[in-house]
Amino acid sequence: MILTVTLNAALDVTYRLDGLHPQGSNRVREVADRAGGKGINVSRVLHTLGHRTVVTGLIGGPTGEAVRSDLAAAGLSDRLVPIAGETRRTVAVVDEQAGDTAVLLEPGPVVSAAEWAHFLERFDRLLPGASAVVLSGSLPGGLPVDAYAVLLRRARAHGVPAVLDADGEALRAGLAEAPDLIKPNADELATVSDSTDPRTAAEALLAAGARAVVASLGADGLIACAHEGSWRARPPERVAGNPTGAGDAAVAVLTLGLIAGEPWPVRLAQAVALSAAAVAAPLAGDFDAAVHRRLLDRVEVEPLTTREGESACH
Amino acid sequence: MILTVTLNAALDVTYRLDGLHPQGSNRVREVADRAGGKGINVSRVLHTLGHRTVVTGLIGGPTGEAVRSDLAAAGLSDRLVPIAGETRRTVAVVDEQAGDTAVLLEPGPVVSAAEWAHFLERFDRLLPGASAVVLSGSLPGGLPVDAYAVLLRRARAHGVPAVLDADGEALRAGLAEAPDLIKPNADELATVSDSTDPRTAAEALLAAGARAVVASLGADGLIACAHEGSWRARPPERVAGNPTGAGDAAVAVLTLGLIAGEPWPVRLAQAVALSAAAVAAPLAGDFDAAVHRRLLDRVEVEPLTTREGESACH
Repeated sequence: MILTVTLNAALDVTYRLDGLHPQGSNRVREVADRAGGKGINVSRVLHTLGHRTVVTGLIGGPTGEAVRSDLAAAGLSDRLVPIAGETRRTVAVVDEQAGDTAVLLEPGPVVSAAEWAHFLERFDRLLPGASAVVLSGSLPGGLPVDAYAVLLRRARAHGVPAVLDADGEALRAGLAEAPDLIKPNADELATVSDSTDPRTAAEALLAAGARAVVASLGADGLIACAHEGSWRARPPERVAGNPTGAGDAAVAVLTLGLIAGEPWPVRLAQAVALSAAAVAAPLAGDFDAAVHRRLLDRVEVEPLTTREGESACH
Repeated sequence: MILTVTLNAALDVTYRLDGLHPQGSNRVREVADRAGGKGINVSRVLHTLGHRTVVTGLIGGPTGEAVRSDLAAAGLSDRLVPIAGETRRTVAVVDEQAGDTAVLLEPGPVVSAAEWAHFLERFDRLLPGASAVVLSGSLPGGLPVDAYAVLLRRARAHGVPAVLDADGEALRAGLAEAPDLIKPNADELATVSDSTDPRTAAEALLAAGARAVVASLGADGLIACAHEGSWRARPPERVAGNPTGAGDAAVAVLTLGLIAGEPWPVRLAQAVALSAAAVAAPLAGDFDAAVHRRLLDRVEVEPLTTREGESACH
């Protein structure tokens, strides 16, 4: 079982309408509500691929109940821990006439120390059954900045490999506990590195403690920096669509590759193909199976080497 | 007990933010969720005034659960009937920088014939305990256009006086069943009358079957057309604020006046004062008690007469 942790879960609401009038009433043509948050997206992808996964994290209020009922409808195993605060909504307002999308982000709950302690107990009980743990997304208010470091330490104590997908302070604090993999995107790299070159930034994160770094670069694919070497993987074609959730699809596949000990080029090819297939699907956590099949054997993976022919990362 | 019927209940969500960017992420500074829909607002006002009231209508899905939990928190008696469809949200996005408010209106559920039949059973069971019934707001999809006429007929069969606050086809169909009071606002008058003069429009509605018509004209107050006579009532001062819910406050007070058989000038003065006090409160269903006390004895009420000195409505 792969355990995903979503400490700042969300109900992702999508409104489609024709023309957004900022000073009046707007009739929404189509409404979609979906359990969201990066860890939940990862579990959704794993579940669709036929792997056992359990969702944990923090959940609260009527919006939290809506998240839970959507997880149940999707057949996802829900071991979320209740909190008093209300789970946040994100509202994407898609103006199909103008081609614009405005996203409204609620601030989310503030978590008490007692609730965090309760979550840690739950986490410790779930770890013995996990083949890997995925820690994804932002931290809600009230949690210590080293929350992910605390979870990484406990995962290591149980011998469970851990993937961290976070940014800023939460990522930086987590590096000290040597996560087996981190997967920043270009924006997230910028929050923890002075370099604008993704390879240099990834190398710095490896030096700072991560055991492997896979940086997702949108349509340019992925680069990986690991102690075993470094690679670049590119999609064979451009795929149009919704990039939200593409990184979570990559995390799902990279976690499977980590557990199976697959060679890096195989992991990366699979991650690029599934990421592109996720872009082709309108909702985060879904992927287009036809696009996935079409791309899988055609992803280009090449070693990243220095002029002297050594691995670019070390 | 006053029974209010909200067939198209809503969760009213208010987002406050500084600057709305239609093409990107917007951090919401403040979130408020509240059970809404016109009948629910009426019950909230009655409850605050110390009167017994029961909320019924249709409710569904996780958003419906959020509405119910807010009703429970407000201490309102909830006899809503569950449906399979999902209760709608309204999202008011208040851009405090620009001074704009965009309102996003979800389409709401579609109600099945079996659900409507179930509601009618519940309504019949609640009527014997009611001193009046208030039918408020729009009809969700799937209901017959004469839904309010059906309810008015059943109320009359139980000898329960009925107030109808609707517009368009739903109001027009209801007139045939002689509601004891209807309370259109200026916009709603325009949906059922060709005349732009509120008095002429109100007179036409009286002729079409309503036993009394009170038209709310915003800052200009109210006019009443009844078989007993006709009056105009004006607030003694302008009150700034949020007009949403002001009409519902008027309906609450006019229903109390109907039950008590108070003279029309007294009913109208109370309705104008409470309406203005509702404008002064930021949320629909609330009113500012200090404004209410200040205005109550100062509302100007005068008979509306023809040149010959007769009542303007007959």
